[in-house]
Amino acid sequence: MKRIKAGAITAALLVGSVFGVGVARWGLGAAASGELGKLASDRGLSGEEAEAALKTFLAPGQHDEYLMFASGGHSGQIHVIGVPSMQLLKTIPVFSTDSWSGYGVGADMSETIFREGSDPEKNDLLTWGDAHHPALSETEGEYDGRFIYVNDRANGRIGMVNLADFKTKQILDVPNMTTSHGGVFATPNTEYVHISSMQPQPQDGEFTELSEYEDKYRGVSTFVSVDQKSGKLDLAKSFQIELPPYDQDLADAGKLGSEGWAFINSYNTEMATGEAENVTLEGESITNDFDFLHIINWEKAAEVVEAGNYEMLNGVRYIPLETAIEEGLLYFAPEPRNPHGVDVAPNGEQIVVSGKLDPNVTVYSFEKIMKAIDSEDFDGTDPFGVPILKFDSVIQGQVEVGGGPLHSQFDDEGFAYTSLFVESAVAKWSLNPLELVEKIPIHYNVGHLVTAEGDTVSPDGKYLVSLNKWSVDRHPVVGTLKPQNFQLIDLDTPNMQLLKDMAIGFGEPHYTQIIKADKLTSRIEVYEPGTDPLTMEHSEWATEAGKENIVRDGDNLHVYMSAMRSHFTPDIVRAKAGDHVYMHVTNIETSPDATHGFAIPGYNKQISLDPGETVTVEFDATRSGSFAFYCTEFCSALHLEMQGWLLVEP
Amino acid sequence: MKRIKAGAITAALLVGSVFGVGVARWGLGAAASGELGKLASDRGLSGEEAEAALKTFLAPGQHDEYLMFASGGHSGQIHVIGVPSMQLLKTIPVFSTDSWSGYGVGADMSETIFREGSDPEKNDLLTWGDAHHPALSETEGEYDGRFIYVNDRANGRIGMVNLADFKTKQILDVPNMTTSHGGVFATPNTEYVHISSMQPQPQDGEFTELSEYEDKYRGVSTFVSVDQKSGKLDLAKSFQIELPPYDQDLADAGKLGSEGWAFINSYNTEMATGEAENVTLEGESITNDFDFLHIINWEKAAEVVEAGNYEMLNGVRYIPLETAIEEGLLYFAPEPRNPHGVDVAPNGEQIVVSGKLDPNVTVYSFEKIMKAIDSEDFDGTDPFGVPILKFDSVIQGQVEVGGGPLHSQFDDEGFAYTSLFVESAVAKWSLNPLELVEKIPIHYNVGHLVTAEGDTVSPDGKYLVSLNKWSVDRHPVVGTLKPQNFQLIDLDTPNMQLLKDMAIGFGEPHYTQIIKADKLTSRIEVYEPGTDPLTMEHSEWATEAGKENIVRDGDNLHVYMSAMRSHFTPDIVRAKAGDHVYMHVTNIETSPDATHGFAIPGYNKQISLDPGETVTVEFDATRSGSFAFYCTEFCSALHLEMQGWLLVEP
Repeated sequence: MKRIKAGAITAALLVGSVFGVGVARWGLGAAASGELGKLASDRGLSGEEAEAALKTFLAPGQHDEYLMFASGGHSGQIHVIGVPSMQLLKTIPVFSTDSWSGYGVGADMSETIFREGSDPEKNDLLTWGDAHHPALSETEGEYDGRFIYVNDRANGRIGMVNLADFKTKQILDVPNMTTSHGGVFATPNTEYVHISSMQPQPQDGEFTELSEYEDKYRGVSTFVSVDQKSGKLDLAKSFQIELPPYDQDLADAGKLGSEGWAFINSYNTEMATGEAENVTLEGESITNDFDFLHIINWEKAAEVVEAGNYEMLNGVRYIPLETAIEEGLLYFAPEPRNPHGVDVAPNGEQIVVSGKLDPNVTVYSFEKIMKAIDSEDFDGTDPFGVPILKFDSVIQGQVEVGGGPLHSQFDDEGFAYTSLFVESAVAKWSLNPLELVEKIPIHYNVGHLVTAEGDTVSPDGKYLVSLNKWSVDRHPVVGTLKPQNFQLIDLDTPNMQLLKDMAIGFGEPHYTQIIKADKLTSRIEVYEPGTDPLTMEHSEWATEAGKENIVRDGDNLHVYMSAMRSHFTPDIVRAKAGDHVYMHVTNIETSPDATHGFAIPGYNKQISLDPGETVTVEFDATRSGSFAFYCTEFCSALHLEMQGWLLVEP
Repeated sequence: MKRIKAGAITAALLVGSVFGVGVARWGLGAAASGELGKLASDRGLSGEEAEAALKTFLAPGQHDEYLMFASGGHSGQIHVIGVPSMQLLKTIPVFSTDSWSGYGVGADMSETIFREGSDPEKNDLLTWGDAHHPALSETEGEYDGRFIYVNDRANGRIGMVNLADFKTKQILDVPNMTTSHGGVFATPNTEYVHISSMQPQPQDGEFTELSEYEDKYRGVSTFVSVDQKSGKLDLAKSFQIELPPYDQDLADAGKLGSEGWAFINSYNTEMATGEAENVTLEGESITNDFDFLHIINWEKAAEVVEAGNYEMLNGVRYIPLETAIEEGLLYFAPEPRNPHGVDVAPNGEQIVVSGKLDPNVTVYSFEKIMKAIDSEDFDGTDPFGVPILKFDSVIQGQVEVGGGPLHSQFDDEGFAYTSLFVESAVAKWSLNPLELVEKIPIHYNVGHLVTAEGDTVSPDGKYLVSLNKWSVDRHPVVGTLKPQNFQLIDLDTPNMQLLKDMAIGFGEPHYTQIIKADKLTSRIEVYEPGTDPLTMEHSEWATEAGKENIVRDGDNLHVYMSAMRSHFTPDIVRAKAGDHVYMHVTNIETSPDATHGFAIPGYNKQISLDPGETVTVEFDATRSGSFAFYCTEFCSALHLEMQGWLLVEP
């Protein structure tokens, strides 16, 4: 990021550009001379807009410097977006089905993922989720480009995507919680990904009257262990910490000096249930001046668990609240009421909390927190016995940033950027001293925001993306359900400069992370022949050219089929009504892009087969008839001829 | 579109720009002077690329001139893309579920659509489809912006989207066919949308040996009647024409002078089934030098049906092949083998057919076809008795355009543009005289292509989008399943100029249409209070502020709930295990963008509620427990507090 001199900042403040709009516009004079200037002028672009065009344009065939991974909200997906072009490159289905890739619509592997991701005692078979906070895996606090995780806010689950092939490999239904917001984040070496509950639930999972809310409802903080080779989540090596029945909100991991610690915001420490007379749930839940920042020593918690000081609860090692207090795993610090975001600065020392009902960001000092804990400088406990640190003892200070501050991100120059939901702006402020620098208006109602490599120990700054929940008139009307609006902001200019709007009309995203594209070194284009993407190993069901076969085993019909431009072998499959059919299809191509598909009319099955991939489609041949299966990818000049017959005799 | 002088074309040809690449690059001299030039140069953009940046950039808050509606292929969706910015604005789910909008994942209306769209005697409940060819509704041959239709290539269905709210209202499972490719197109006043079968099927729908293919398998051409007010498809007023068991491929409607006629390509007139020894299905199906262009008089067919000369077959009025021949409804003209695209020129007189195994486009003359029919200038009949017109009597001529020509589009200056799959290029040629003008290479393997307003009687030209099936190295690697590549080409330059690549990593699209944005005059932003989007009328289940209620009727629990920032009323719902629960939720907001969602953990239900909308979620309360429902849209500063409790007692 370009270094901004203090003088320049002061000058900018003096000329009134605190609100950052209109002021820094280049005239159409010098900037717009020549053919390009004329072209810009013909299209009604200001000089600043013409610059933005040139700064964000991706020349045909060029690639973006960064990739942004954006959660899709209740679309259940992760969206991969190029930065600075703000072009959607890929949609990765995680919690929801996707017939393009066949995810949950025919392929055995994906159906396994869905089945394993829905505890049948707790859930219907879940075919959607609310993808909230993606977390890239990290090594020494830097994104390492291996895996990405995301939580399901609706059902308390985590999805895991391998960035070798950009496919979901696992959904884990985390026990003892349903809704979740506090996660996921990865610990600095991805030992764990963290997920905590949002609304508390009855600890025994049974129906419980709201009058017993304080007694029987509980929250949890979960550290889910990661297998370093596969990236998969291993519940047996994970642990959970019981929390009071507050609404635990966003969370972040300590880093550098604060590595080993975690921080979770909370709200509704009033424990409002909506049952009170004459006050709504949301009315009652904002009565306390302060809620509690949860401060968790996860490194010590792991030791406590290793020492055997836990209970087993529904398959996970569970540290009761009492133990957590006794062992010094959990402390509270007051935070201005109903906060939303908690973000640890790259230095690991400063922890930034934003209370959406308070115009300030509050900056906590990790060093002060440690001192207060060591000296037991407490202001009593909460009703459940958790020690409360004194507010004044643990904060570095506050910065008044404006209306409705939510989330903060960081650059490489010691500045923080905080989203202001109510004010529809982004505030830039310095971490040392704590001082507002400038603001830029956004359009409109910003939730999260992100900077390049913003959650690492060494952010790039450079670009900021503001994730705006309302678009109002920024995009053409494309239905009553409006797109959201991502705005790309240049941080390498004397004032923050708005470069581009991006319509998000395919999800209700929440959060994103931006990684330098060249860090994704595990990416592959073609699988080894016969790979099962679920295991990333050779499939026992794979076939190869010349070895295709049909094997009957009672009522089970196993078809070992190959797909190659422009032919399925075999292309006539005879079954009997009542057979259970397994189509084991291997794409025996070795060229990138040589994808095939396989679909059977009427049987609601569609699979996509990347080069080298083996997928099994499994179904009951319930109806007799002649079914023309075909390749769903336009693979070759004779693609339309790539078809065959499934003949089901009565 | 800018008029291109013949001299300019000749000059371009002389300097060797037939292949259009590299030659027409502006130097970085004059074009790139000034600040903008320096910026372009810093980013490594050539002069031509810098121009492309300025030609395609959408300044923040500006809107695109055109909207492109692209099918999503086996993603089952329609994608709405701005042109020239090539920005994805909206994904409309049609054949596949979508949890963002709640389509097929909780909302009664969408589940009704899915249920009605899957004939249970013929299909499993279909939750995906292969969206191939979108067709905008037309008035007098012009797009009118009211509705859009798209066929399901996998299951022989049509989806219908209302462009008032950009939502799917209907899926029609068309009888007597399964796979489909020949459609959909709208007749010039949207009296009908057309869909024909692809692979033929046994006419009685029963299992039938392939040895009886010629006798018992049949194709059909279906004209599905459109209700002009709702846009919905009315099977009772539709009719179908029996066709020989060839693979009927793409289709187009006559216009102006040829209005009332329709044209369908075919291949596999060899009737290969894959059963032959020593030859593959695709090998045998390319042995004939000519297949048959199907020429159908649909206006007369409608009269024949009105006169009662039809049979009823599975709920549709069906004209047997014999009747079609007798009544002069069906003729064949030879077309070079295994053609793919058939496109009627804006003048209605020229019908362009591309044979993917022949380097020529063949241009038929409607006038000559009529003369040949009138004079019964036949070259015998096919094996089923359909009269075959003489090739030389009905063609205007051919143009050798290059390797693997597929589809053609048109501009306002008398030029046609044909995609060359094998050659990876787009050829521009003049309709009169039939003459190749220039080519531009694309990247790579182009299938369809489209020009602005390209299927109307008055195309705009201006922009061409090439729908490329392989992207190779045009985009960063984002998994083994690669994005496709749309390329925007400027037609207003002396030579066709490539402006921009767009990654399509969210579907396998087939075709698009581009409409002038200001033609979409029926668009709405907010529903009338209590609207059911399925009927677009006031819902009987709507509620309003102060009238919310819970009504028990035996085991049925009807909850009339309102949603308003930041509260559900009621926010505590008590049910008993075994109850059948109807949550009738009305979003009582009146501001655009004030969308709410409603989700219940564990119950796999998610709905989206646009302002004014009423949606019912219906489910069996099978499990007792305390379920924290919540709003899935970030609607307000207290969005996180917009939650409530479903308490299911044992």
